[in-house]
Amino acid sequence: MKCAVCRGPAVIDLRRHNANFCADHFLKFCRDQVVRAIDEHDMIEPGDRVLVAVSGGKDSLALWDLLLELGYDAEGMTIGLGIGDYSTASTAAALAFAERRALTLRRIDLRGDYDYDIPTASAATGRVPCSSCGLSKRHLIDRAALDGGYDVVATGHNLDDEAAVLFGNVLHWHTEYLGRQRPTLAERSGPSSPGTRVFPRKVKPLVRLTERETAAYCVLRDIDYIVEECPMAEGNRHLRYKEALNAVEDASPGAKQAFYFGFLARAASRFAPDAAVTDGELRACGRCGAPTTGEVCAFCRLVERVGGQDPVPVELVRPRRGGARHRRAGTKAHS
Amino acid sequence: MKCAVCRGPAVIDLRRHNANFCADHFLKFCRDQVVRAIDEHDMIEPGDRVLVAVSGGKDSLALWDLLLELGYDAEGMTIGLGIGDYSTASTAAALAFAERRALTLRRIDLRGDYDYDIPTASAATGRVPCSSCGLSKRHLIDRAALDGGYDVVATGHNLDDEAAVLFGNVLHWHTEYLGRQRPTLAERSGPSSPGTRVFPRKVKPLVRLTERETAAYCVLRDIDYIVEECPMAEGNRHLRYKEALNAVEDASPGAKQAFYFGFLARAASRFAPDAAVTDGELRACGRCGAPTTGEVCAFCRLVERVGGQDPVPVELVRPRRGGARHRRAGTKAHS
Repeated sequence: MKCAVCRGPAVIDLRRHNANFCADHFLKFCRDQVVRAIDEHDMIEPGDRVLVAVSGGKDSLALWDLLLELGYDAEGMTIGLGIGDYSTASTAAALAFAERRALTLRRIDLRGDYDYDIPTASAATGRVPCSSCGLSKRHLIDRAALDGGYDVVATGHNLDDEAAVLFGNVLHWHTEYLGRQRPTLAERSGPSSPGTRVFPRKVKPLVRLTERETAAYCVLRDIDYIVEECPMAEGNRHLRYKEALNAVEDASPGAKQAFYFGFLARAASRFAPDAAVTDGELRACGRCGAPTTGEVCAFCRLVERVGGQDPVPVELVRPRRGGARHRRAGTKAHS
Repeated sequence: MKCAVCRGPAVIDLRRHNANFCADHFLKFCRDQVVRAIDEHDMIEPGDRVLVAVSGGKDSLALWDLLLELGYDAEGMTIGLGIGDYSTASTAAALAFAERRALTLRRIDLRGDYDYDIPTASAATGRVPCSSCGLSKRHLIDRAALDGGYDVVATGHNLDDEAAVLFGNVLHWHTEYLGRQRPTLAERSGPSSPGTRVFPRKVKPLVRLTERETAAYCVLRDIDYIVEECPMAEGNRHLRYKEALNAVEDASPGAKQAFYFGFLARAASRFAPDAAVTDGELRACGRCGAPTTGEVCAFCRLVERVGGQDPVPVELVRPRRGGARHRRAGTKAHS
């Protein structure tokens, strides 16, 4: 097996590209794919301050590393979700990465800062953990980016993630989510406060890389990431959709990429009006000022409902068959 | 396990409807689903003459039986495809069904009437068998319906078929096929001959039933159908898409139905313009008069290319990994 570029010994084969690469050219391949994603989808401008959502997993650490390699001003943010040993190890991996490179890593701890955690929220609401987890992460990262003056939030969603979310959105024809599933979401101003950002720009620079590739990238770059999957995501729909697509990809390499990028090229715009409908209904949350369609935003309602309750151990919150009921476009499993 | 209607002993459980049925109420359920499909999608008007495309498999025989049960004037048509023992047995099953009920069954034999068969066509064109098979069946059934004065062609595509075709069309974002994937395709006149039908109306009355249900229907109605799947379809994409969706359905009963009918309700119309583009380019085939976008229609080109060649045995035509390259919306695997 030889490298497609230099003919030296290859360390990885990429079936969908019908190519093998040595370590150096694989790392270059990864950087090139990120450059291309950033360019094609107007993700980051030179000089932008980037806030990277860091879980401690392979995707977010590879993303942070790649953005730094490419010369971007990228700081990290990690959220302690309170999912037992899994969260402890995730945060430790994120911290180790940042300390080794003397990087700025902003930290929020759900239990310390808001007096709840994901297992407790799941138990108290009776909903799947992915629901309160995605909600919490979106809210807190958006807010940190706005408060911290970052131009853009970058998340580690890879091609497998995006294809699986797309599959879920298509299976249910969630037209609003389909209208919003893009690798770049532009920043938005509130209707009542023109010129004031209520949502930061959000980008997914890894959409051209698979999770196998981000894992290989970390190994070759000597990045220690947490290998375990979230114990609460087990059996959720997102993972099932990944498995179904993996079976298709296995028989037809490139199928996943064609599915996702074909959607962006030929279908996404047809659903954009469905997402815009909700945009028009946004107003400021009466508690925290975050954009919401109700009086009080979903995050403040969650904190009000579950904050202050005694912690429920992970082991007592069983993932329910059927998984997340209303997965939002672009929500990752967990971190 | 009790029947949801009469509380008698049930013979089948339908997880996606969360219901079990005894034999009589299951047969009624099947009829009701067909009535509902016909009504909701304006498939058949009272008094219409229906031509049923009959392969000898469970779907087409169940369809013919159901239409007769519902009082429709339904005659059959079957095409000998020359796929070895499989085709012989298929035709025999269709004939036995018709003879037992003294029904009219029109017959075409590809080798006898056009001097080719599907294995030979596949070998000669170097394309997957499903390609020439679907093309041949569509052309000949459309033509028979127009020549025979039938108002509508009915095919046995079931929910599994339609969901798998939809999955394939969505995986590739074949927007033209998506624009045309409907349970009823209206008849069309040629642009050069207004008022003259060039495509008959085509309907799929079984879209609300799964293949497990059509099989059970045949068993309970004592209909002998050919159980084997087409040997040339083995490993094709359509079957792989079915498997991927089955895994999703198994974990979330009803997922397939939600996928297909959600598409019809909330997405199909967005792709309709893509199908219309091709409509405008139709003209009459220089050989047979069938509507085509070229000088000579694809069927006449196929016959010209492969007609008269010595038969190639099925065993020598191996299904290729990757399956049909450009499956048309609404093409069944084989018959």
